[in-house]
Amino acid sequence: MDLASLRKGLEQHRQSHLLQFWDDLSSENQKELYDDLSSIDLDRVCQYFGKATTGLSEAQTKSDERLEPVPEKVCGSTSRMSSDEHKQLFDSGLRLIAEGKVAALLLAGGQGTRLGVPYPKGMYNVQLPSGKTLYQLQAERLLKLQELAFKLTNRHGVIPWYIMTSEHTKDKTVKFFQEHSYFGLEADNVIVFEQHMLPCFTFEGQIILAGKHKVARAPDGNGGLYSALGSADVIADMRRRGVECMHAYCVDNILVKMADPVFVGFCHQRSADCGAKVVEKAFPTEAVGVVCQVDGHYEVVEYSEIALKTAELRREDGRLTFNAGNICNHYFTTDFIESIVTEHDSSLQHHVAKKKIPFVSDDGSITTPTTPNGIKMEKFVFDVFQFSKQFAVLEVLREDEFAPLKNGPGAAKDTPATCRSSLLNQHYRWVLAAGGKFMDSEGSVLPLIPARSSSMPHTTDIDCEVSPMASYAGEGLEELCANQVLTAPIQVVPGKIIKPECS
Amino acid sequence: MDLASLRKGLEQHRQSHLLQFWDDLSSENQKELYDDLSSIDLDRVCQYFGKATTGLSEAQTKSDERLEPVPEKVCGSTSRMSSDEHKQLFDSGLRLIAEGKVAALLLAGGQGTRLGVPYPKGMYNVQLPSGKTLYQLQAERLLKLQELAFKLTNRHGVIPWYIMTSEHTKDKTVKFFQEHSYFGLEADNVIVFEQHMLPCFTFEGQIILAGKHKVARAPDGNGGLYSALGSADVIADMRRRGVECMHAYCVDNILVKMADPVFVGFCHQRSADCGAKVVEKAFPTEAVGVVCQVDGHYEVVEYSEIALKTAELRREDGRLTFNAGNICNHYFTTDFIESIVTEHDSSLQHHVAKKKIPFVSDDGSITTPTTPNGIKMEKFVFDVFQFSKQFAVLEVLREDEFAPLKNGPGAAKDTPATCRSSLLNQHYRWVLAAGGKFMDSEGSVLPLIPARSSSMPHTTDIDCEVSPMASYAGEGLEELCANQVLTAPIQVVPGKIIKPECS
Repeated sequence: MDLASLRKGLEQHRQSHLLQFWDDLSSENQKELYDDLSSIDLDRVCQYFGKATTGLSEAQTKSDERLEPVPEKVCGSTSRMSSDEHKQLFDSGLRLIAEGKVAALLLAGGQGTRLGVPYPKGMYNVQLPSGKTLYQLQAERLLKLQELAFKLTNRHGVIPWYIMTSEHTKDKTVKFFQEHSYFGLEADNVIVFEQHMLPCFTFEGQIILAGKHKVARAPDGNGGLYSALGSADVIADMRRRGVECMHAYCVDNILVKMADPVFVGFCHQRSADCGAKVVEKAFPTEAVGVVCQVDGHYEVVEYSEIALKTAELRREDGRLTFNAGNICNHYFTTDFIESIVTEHDSSLQHHVAKKKIPFVSDDGSITTPTTPNGIKMEKFVFDVFQFSKQFAVLEVLREDEFAPLKNGPGAAKDTPATCRSSLLNQHYRWVLAAGGKFMDSEGSVLPLIPARSSSMPHTTDIDCEVSPMASYAGEGLEELCANQVLTAPIQVVPGKIIKPECS
Repeated sequence: MDLASLRKGLEQHRQSHLLQFWDDLSSENQKELYDDLSSIDLDRVCQYFGKATTGLSEAQTKSDERLEPVPEKVCGSTSRMSSDEHKQLFDSGLRLIAEGKVAALLLAGGQGTRLGVPYPKGMYNVQLPSGKTLYQLQAERLLKLQELAFKLTNRHGVIPWYIMTSEHTKDKTVKFFQEHSYFGLEADNVIVFEQHMLPCFTFEGQIILAGKHKVARAPDGNGGLYSALGSADVIADMRRRGVECMHAYCVDNILVKMADPVFVGFCHQRSADCGAKVVEKAFPTEAVGVVCQVDGHYEVVEYSEIALKTAELRREDGRLTFNAGNICNHYFTTDFIESIVTEHDSSLQHHVAKKKIPFVSDDGSITTPTTPNGIKMEKFVFDVFQFSKQFAVLEVLREDEFAPLKNGPGAAKDTPATCRSSLLNQHYRWVLAAGGKFMDSEGSVLPLIPARSSSMPHTTDIDCEVSPMASYAGEGLEELCANQVLTAPIQVVPGKIIKPECS
């Protein structure tokens, strides 16, 4: 231990308080603290702090003049596409998958604080009839895509699944996949890596001590992806496998179409290096970022950066001017990602999140504050849009693709109940579209949207769940469902329709 | 008692079972049953049953060919209106109010079964900072409108408030208003009347006995309005007051703009006899009826009557073809209503709702079934659109006008939490638009849509509530709010901004 030199470095960065308990510590704890502090690149993190907090007290809205909607020419829309066009994109995406060129990239480092569970969100079970967790749904969607790609091309392509976790979620995620035999995927094709942690700062720029010999740290945001990719050799792994592009997404969207062939096909067809799936923003103050151009560069303007006047702007047809709602569904080429990691990541500025950060008081006791006392520094995955040379935006239908799990039961939105409802609703539509009919207990055919009744007072959901192994996006259900008269609850699994075990 | 003649009438209508316990009854109970049965117009209700159940076992969807969207020429849209146009309509509505020509007509006969409370929905408190109930919010909106109309015209116009209750809600509603001194309204101008009850039938057409000497009855739907208006002399009261038009709405929409001058002005300007406010339907299977034309007549096609293929039809711009979502906000002229009551109501067909109806078994015990065992017959308030000679549709923004309270806490939508959130969000926008600014506890200006944080894990709501007495629809807040720096929670009341008592 070269304490003198550590002390000098800390002094230079006005962080000497980090050693304030040094003399109280056992030699073992001194060693831990020494290692902890030595691992911090003070130059770098203090510079992050300075850049991130400049102008922080000003209102952080972007002025109207700088913003422009995404130009029509880079946009497509699934609802304005013919079914032929849709099919052609789907097949072109499947061909890329069959060639092994497509990866899925999952952002799963979040702690799920708002959801209120002590385990990774991907392990959450929203009480579907099947009891499947988010991770299982996602794994099975990949399996199904590989199967569809094989059926189309007779080639066995693999979709490697890169999962970015954090200190909070890595071990539990790995254990969960192991215990469930990777839900049928090859363990080799599920690559779990970890995002970095950054020290937490007080508003004045002092690194916070979480304990006498421990620095307070937090994950560096989902945009920590890029530095994590760089240090975890993930790009090398992609190159080795021949991965040319990837679909990045957040763990909490129960409807996510992983490695969606339509989206991949769309971006590929347009030679995009970077792309985003969006849904139409529903109302001006919806808490969703919008994809747009700022000073001519593509950006996601976060909902907290937009002024009321701007948010309320409308086009002639009454739609919101800034309506390309970001749903964290992104397309990147491997070349683009590599250029980010090697050239651009270090220049990206961190965003500041004010948080309540437990800290050690001068008397050595641990205090959990009741109001925010410091900041976490985060990057966002979409911060890199500005570097795109060929951008593409695909508008998709919210009811088909976006139902995030953000909050615990009883919240006003994005709850386990809303996620469950969105998924079952979609699957019910699929079965109807495939020619199935549902009857009630009296033998009457149920309408598309059943009336709520005293027997189902809180829902209009028909418990109809389609296993991803039976259908990825509604395709291939005709043989099983056409002219079938069904009574919920049912589960559609490959080759048959079953009643859930516990019903 | 003329038992012989009653018995004969029952036999003629194959309802003799209604007397099956006659010999067991005390003479007092015999009298009750005799009166109960004698009050039923068997010819009429059995005819209702026959008409309502014809074709019931067939799929009740309306075929594509018969449906057409509402023609552009009868439509307006608040989001495509200039602010001048909006102001002009608002003022024209206020002038009608000042002249005493506008009434509010509240449909409040529902039992709130899904919400799960044993009292009328209007008495529900969604936990706003003020603790106001739906009834109080609505009463205050009327007061405010009368004030605005007076300010504009110097005339004291009254908006009489007609409240249709049912056996389930009447007494509690009246008592609630009395206990709260009608929330500042004149008792004379709050006219509570009651909708009728109809006997419940088995699927086979037998009237159900709820007890040995009691027929099972249920309210006749919100379309029971018309027969209730006829028998309660409400139209005569309207005529006496000089009411020329009215705004009818359901009790459960916390954002309802009662007697909305813009809507009233819009319909009046177009000389409409009947009109509907609509919001854009969000997705094909949203559980909302759509206003459209069926065989050339205006109708609300209920969500349970529409086929998937029809629901999913889209226009060239990607919007749903049938997108005029009904939010139970209707405009009627008194002449139109009178023509319904006198000419058309008896020809309207009842809709059938399958229900679990408690009944008396042959052994005399009361059984509560677990699956539907019978039907209630209901009319819908919008069944009369077909008789309109000059129809008008005004599309409004959902976030400004529609947040219904349907379900109890924890459901996937339309809960107390979503209603509270919608209202507070709207009021926060109003204060921002009036030039107010909100700071967090650190002194930073809050953005339009604050990020969720660990201190507010389940919400992005800013607790900012504007009393209807301070503003009806966001107007008139500049003087109070411009350049004010505020910290939530706040309540804006006439002339000042206060902190809630319990915060």
